[in-house]
Amino acid sequence: MPLFRRSNPQEAQPQQPFVARTDAGSLRGGVDLGGTKIQALIVDAESKVLGRARAATPHEGGPPAVIDAIAATVGEALADANVESTQLSGIGIGSPGSVDHSTGTVANASNLPDWMDPYPMGPEISARFGGLPVVLGNDVDVAVNAEFQLGAGRPYPSILGVWWGTGVGGGVILNGMNWVGRGFAGEFGHQVIERGGARCGCGNRGCVEAYAGRKDMQRWVTAKVEDGSKTKLFKIAKHKHRDSLTSGVWARAIRDDDRLAERAVRRATRALGAGIASSINLLDLPAVVVGGGMGERFFVDRQAEIAKYMEANLFRREDPPALLATELGDDGGAIGAALLLLPGA
Amino acid sequence: MPLFRRSNPQEAQPQQPFVARTDAGSLRGGVDLGGTKIQALIVDAESKVLGRARAATPHEGGPPAVIDAIAATVGEALADANVESTQLSGIGIGSPGSVDHSTGTVANASNLPDWMDPYPMGPEISARFGGLPVVLGNDVDVAVNAEFQLGAGRPYPSILGVWWGTGVGGGVILNGMNWVGRGFAGEFGHQVIERGGARCGCGNRGCVEAYAGRKDMQRWVTAKVEDGSKTKLFKIAKHKHRDSLTSGVWARAIRDDDRLAERAVRRATRALGAGIASSINLLDLPAVVVGGGMGERFFVDRQAEIAKYMEANLFRREDPPALLATELGDDGGAIGAALLLLPGA
Repeated sequence: MPLFRRSNPQEAQPQQPFVARTDAGSLRGGVDLGGTKIQALIVDAESKVLGRARAATPHEGGPPAVIDAIAATVGEALADANVESTQLSGIGIGSPGSVDHSTGTVANASNLPDWMDPYPMGPEISARFGGLPVVLGNDVDVAVNAEFQLGAGRPYPSILGVWWGTGVGGGVILNGMNWVGRGFAGEFGHQVIERGGARCGCGNRGCVEAYAGRKDMQRWVTAKVEDGSKTKLFKIAKHKHRDSLTSGVWARAIRDDDRLAERAVRRATRALGAGIASSINLLDLPAVVVGGGMGERFFVDRQAEIAKYMEANLFRREDPPALLATELGDDGGAIGAALLLLPGA
Repeated sequence: MPLFRRSNPQEAQPQQPFVARTDAGSLRGGVDLGGTKIQALIVDAESKVLGRARAATPHEGGPPAVIDAIAATVGEALADANVESTQLSGIGIGSPGSVDHSTGTVANASNLPDWMDPYPMGPEISARFGGLPVVLGNDVDVAVNAEFQLGAGRPYPSILGVWWGTGVGGGVILNGMNWVGRGFAGEFGHQVIERGGARCGCGNRGCVEAYAGRKDMQRWVTAKVEDGSKTKLFKIAKHKHRDSLTSGVWARAIRDDDRLAERAVRRATRALGAGIASSINLLDLPAVVVGGGMGERFFVDRQAEIAKYMEANLFRREDPPALLATELGDDGGAIGAALLLLPGA
């Protein structure tokens, strides 16, 4: 029940953008579409994983190449589960970019090849599987929801999800409701923690992401190296045949006691701590779940550090929120995508 | 309808802390209890003001002196409205400090004299008016709700309230629900906008309030004067017989082209803009209402300035939230307190 009821009741902002629900109870497909990898899972009614497959996201060929890769990966996951696509009640896809739920199109997916204009991902994938229902969701929202419903967030009525990866995404679940605002809420990574500070990919300065995004961390160490600092990061990347500093590269450098890498990671955790405190001061949520590629790799080791930086900025220090690792790990995105098929999702 | 329904439904966080509802429709009393003044109103079923009174908040004498002053001010408002207390359905009080709704006590009211321990404000006021129902609310929450229900926020399903005064308070209303979180949400003023920045009254550094709170603005100019800067602020305060830099003192100095005062106000609006952008990036709300003593005095003149600083930090610049002055002005707090008596409030 709301604290304040309107004397002139109005249309509430719709907070459930997903469409095309299907019957529950049957097997479902879930796809986590990222800038580097596609993860597909087949799950049962209890979200237990029956089959899985993973592929690299194409770097060229535009949307058709990505659609081909998604369809092939789902096909492999079906084979792994020994299941026919006709046995699925549908496929859920967690996608980057702007998802239009009414048309099943995705636009502005800057981490996918040539995918700025709207492209009908939903209909195209559906056509590949005999008209099977396909439901799209925002990649971070579905992963946060999976942790909320089935993972670390289960004990809590409300959580903040902090998705620490290439960028820093977020999701806000308030009393079981994913708060999307006018459609673009959850930009945890674009809270300002240092006015006039580091330039962020979004064009502003001093956002959490400008310090903690993996891409931004790479830009920072690149500038430091140009200024004469030493680091093994780029050597490790070369050795691992990576053309960017992946979370694995960062992890290896930290294990090797690389001082510049350590400084960059601390700079990131300090930003995350401040950003989490800002969100908690505004919303007073009981729990924060930290996921994403960097989160999966670093959160457990850095939990105390993030907690320390958070607590330094909390208004109410006596009752800090629980700061939690994900429980579903890498599977969370695809499991959350498959949850989109459940009624009431 | 929530976007995500729990598979294991749980107790939602209660977002309606107020108790002791009474019948609607009749006359109500509303009290806005501030650190400097007590404002009492008598309103009718449509929240139209029938009578009013105002008094200075006692600086000594502890809770009993404040209770006496509240009762006297309500008495004057009743006389002004030509109404007997028996005609009221109850009295609502917007109070600073921590309000315990189950017992009607208030604690930690640092702007009231010797009012840190819990004191039974509700029962004491009730006893002064023959057992009339008395309902307490947080002073900022009730003022934000008044603007939401009856003022500038009426066209919107959700708003952020920014209460710019001695400190910087806030209120978050989401689809008609005042989001209180675990009971302490809405600390807009304690979002971190500059890590390691100005010391805030809360003990942290770089909060919005550390730049924009009237008390913090005074501390800043005091330090500047000690360092040799010139300002007319303290002379104006002395002339007006004020022992602190009230919003009227600030306004006068600005009219007199006082450069240090101008710098301080810009420093405040810049902080407010960044803080508003952070909140909007996280919650994507359609409107922001700026109230409070400083807000009432300065918002209209500084609206474009705050909007500029906000937009510089918005993630989505194409669709900024409406940035609005209050419509109820100084009456909002007491009108909102009286709204506490309405059913469903």
